[in-house]
Amino acid sequence: MSLTKPVEYADASPEVRAVYDDIMATRKVGAVNNFWKVLACDPALLRRTWEEVRDVMAPGALDPLTKELIYIAVSATNNCEYCSHSHTASARRQGMTDAMFAEVLAVTALANKTNRLANGFRVDVDPAFKPSFG
Amino acid sequence: MSLTKPVEYADASPEVRAVYDDIMATRKVGAVNNFWKVLACDPALLRRTWEEVRDVMAPGALDPLTKELIYIAVSATNNCEYCSHSHTASARRQGMTDAMFAEVLAVTALANKTNRLANGFRVDVDPAFKPSFG
Amino acid sequence: MSLTKPVEYADASPEVRAVYDDIMATRKVGAVNNFWKVLACDPALLRRTWEEVRDVMAPGALDPLTKELIYIAVSATNNCEYCSHSHTASARRQGMTDAMFAEVLAVTALANKTNRLANGFRVDVDPAFKPSFG
Amino acid sequence: MSLTKPVEYADASPEVRAVYDDIMATRKVGAVNNFWKVLACDPALLRRTWEEVRDVMAPGALDPLTKELIYIAVSATNNCEYCSHSHTASARRQGMTDAMFAEVLAVTALANKTNRLANGFRVDVDPAFKPSFG
Amino acid sequence: MSLTKPVEYADASPEVRAVYDDIMATRKVGAVNNFWKVLACDPALLRRTWEEVRDVMAPGALDPLTKELIYIAVSATNNCEYCSHSHTASARRQGMTDAMFAEVLAVTALANKTNRLANGFRVDVDPAFKPSFG
Amino acid sequence: MSLTKPVEYADASPEVRAVYDDIMATRKVGAVNNFWKVLACDPALLRRTWEEVRDVMAPGALDPLTKELIYIAVSATNNCEYCSHSHTASARRQGMTDAMFAEVLAVTALANKTNRLANGFRVDVDPAFKPSFG
Repeated sequence: MSLTKPVEYADASPEVRAVYDDIMATRKVGAVNNFWKVLACDPALLRRTWEEVRDVMAPGALDPLTKELIYIAVSATNNCEYCSHSHTASARRQGMTDAMFAEVLAVTALANKTNRLANGFRVDVDPAFKPSFG
Repeated sequence: MSLTKPVEYADASPEVRAVYDDIMATRKVGAVNNFWKVLACDPALLRRTWEEVRDVMAPGALDPLTKELIYIAVSATNNCEYCSHSHTASARRQGMTDAMFAEVLAVTALANKTNRLANGFRVDVDPAFKPSFG
Repeated sequence: MSLTKPVEYADASPEVRAVYDDIMATRKVGAVNNFWKVLACDPALLRRTWEEVRDVMAPGALDPLTKELIYIAVSATNNCEYCSHSHTASARRQGMTDAMFAEVLAVTALANKTNRLANGFRVDVDPAFKPSFG
Repeated sequence: MSLTKPVEYADASPEVRAVYDDIMATRKVGAVNNFWKVLACDPALLRRTWEEVRDVMAPGALDPLTKELIYIAVSATNNCEYCSHSHTASARRQGMTDAMFAEVLAVTALANKTNRLANGFRVDVDPAFKPSFG
Repeated sequence: MSLTKPVEYADASPEVRAVYDDIMATRKVGAVNNFWKVLACDPALLRRTWEEVRDVMAPGALDPLTKELIYIAVSATNNCEYCSHSHTASARRQGMTDAMFAEVLAVTALANKTNRLANGFRVDVDPAFKPSFG
Repeated sequence: MSLTKPVEYADASPEVRAVYDDIMATRKVGAVNNFWKVLACDPALLRRTWEEVRDVMAPGALDPLTKELIYIAVSATNNCEYCSHSHTASARRQGMTDAMFAEVLAVTALANKTNRLANGFRVDVDPAFKPSFG
């Protein structure tokens, strides 16, 4: 049970409803998921977070599915149960197969491993990796 | 300065040289970077880690550049300076532009943010996100 | 179910009971919560941890509610379900409103985001931020 | 050296300059720090991040100094060198003393400790901590 | 419920069965636990991960119980519920007592605490700690 | 440069000197390292932290070297440069060889990897791992 009371559409203020409406219209779904209902305890936090998700996850230099894969990798690294569920579901809707999902986690696991080897041994950064802007 | 002495090719055992040779041949480069020289203090760790990097990062259900982007996202989340440098350099060699790099970090930052909102509010996972294997 | 057996007051040694008594007297409550019952498997760990909590969370240069807000921020960052629940409950008893709770998590989420932008881009620390003790 | 080239005011586009101008006006300073110059490689990321920092860190249910203390706690937990420096400097400008700073870190350290005790022993959440919204 | 369907022995391919057989023979048990059944959605990931666990956790410069204690410490730090359960069970089978378990977590908690004090205060590394390979 | 001014013995208050004296006597060394000099800005934090380090790291159910190995594993996981240096130096003084150090980090890296596989796939804990206290 969440630590603040979720706000249902029927009980929502006009400001919150406007965000819920934009979420449903953008995603072409008939309801919003629990994350948004809980954020709605602070309408400014709800609006700001939704607008960031909407804009950052839109097509850009990277396609939306690649962005979802990155989201899954970070959520597994941080152990966010909610985000692992929601973004795995979202990625599957956009075409992620079991094989792709397993590879995302294989890379995520490998990076978590070598991050600790590099940090534990305190490996010096090779000069060749440093960018040259000149 | 790293916490064990890096092993240069000239000083390496045949077992270590064999790994160095495979790294250079696979990557078509003339030397190995510091990470491998430090791991060489334990030849079994060196060989095992290299074979995993080589196999996991090869083309599969995901292309190599997408895998590098995931590596960057995890390394930024864990704050691994070495891996941030080495995988950003590697991704650029494979075609990552500044715009793509900024989007990787924008998604990474957003995921780190919403992971804490979901965990801090203890949002319940929506039943709709649960997979049905039936 | 916890990984060691919780120690109930009726079954506790005098050393453990003395800590339980101090917790109940300090907090003006009639029982100790599960965290302390589990730590009681190691009486020295129980006593040391309780004394640190009691002393660090007492009024000082910062007031107790501000300290609870910091505890919530760290627990959300690390995803500690137990501590998120216990310290949110404690902060509410000390006057934290829903609006304050939402702001704690909004700042926590923002810091988790910009921490990864600063680390992912490897931004150099501005010389002006360095302290001058001279 | 950062992984993308910092954008100086003289070289900035009108869109980037508008953000820099707002930062300098809001903070009453004559230049922007490195963090913003690096984010400027992606003007949308720069604008979105600045507006969030400006709005979230403004006075609200919590005062700005309390928000800076939370920022310090999260940045120490995540080990962000840049953010530790910039937000410690910012908090000092707003009145944080050495005694307050030490207490922020003492609480942060304690929370990081008990988070691992609760997670390592897998302590069950007491029913009394669960919120009742009824 | 896991995010991919666990693969039971009866339904497994020859490649997966070969790994399951090696796990059961090495550990002298009659079934494999859920972790392996879930990894089996990607037979290469299953095989690679098992071989690493088998080889890294075998007796070497460190004995197997010491390695399990380190596993518990890392899993508590990262808050991995599954690994905390499985490696605590494994360590108990190898002789870990309640007193040893409590000390592992006491050291883990202390390290998590002092890690944040060192990082939050940005303490300079003493030159005396730097290795001299010369 | 640290964020508070280190306190040298010559400038220390009697309360701080008493802790420094106990550190030097316990460790049989002629000076204290930077970590303690920085904590000395808050004498209560200095004393409390030192007493915890002294008592937790003393011989108990686990020997001191095993405790140092756990400290190294946690510090590599959290990326604490200071603690990686100081506890690697301390473990070497107590007999840790390069082979042991490499194995500590190999286990640490493996645990960081499987923690993310278990969390990313959301593997269910096997009932057999649950303790039975009955």
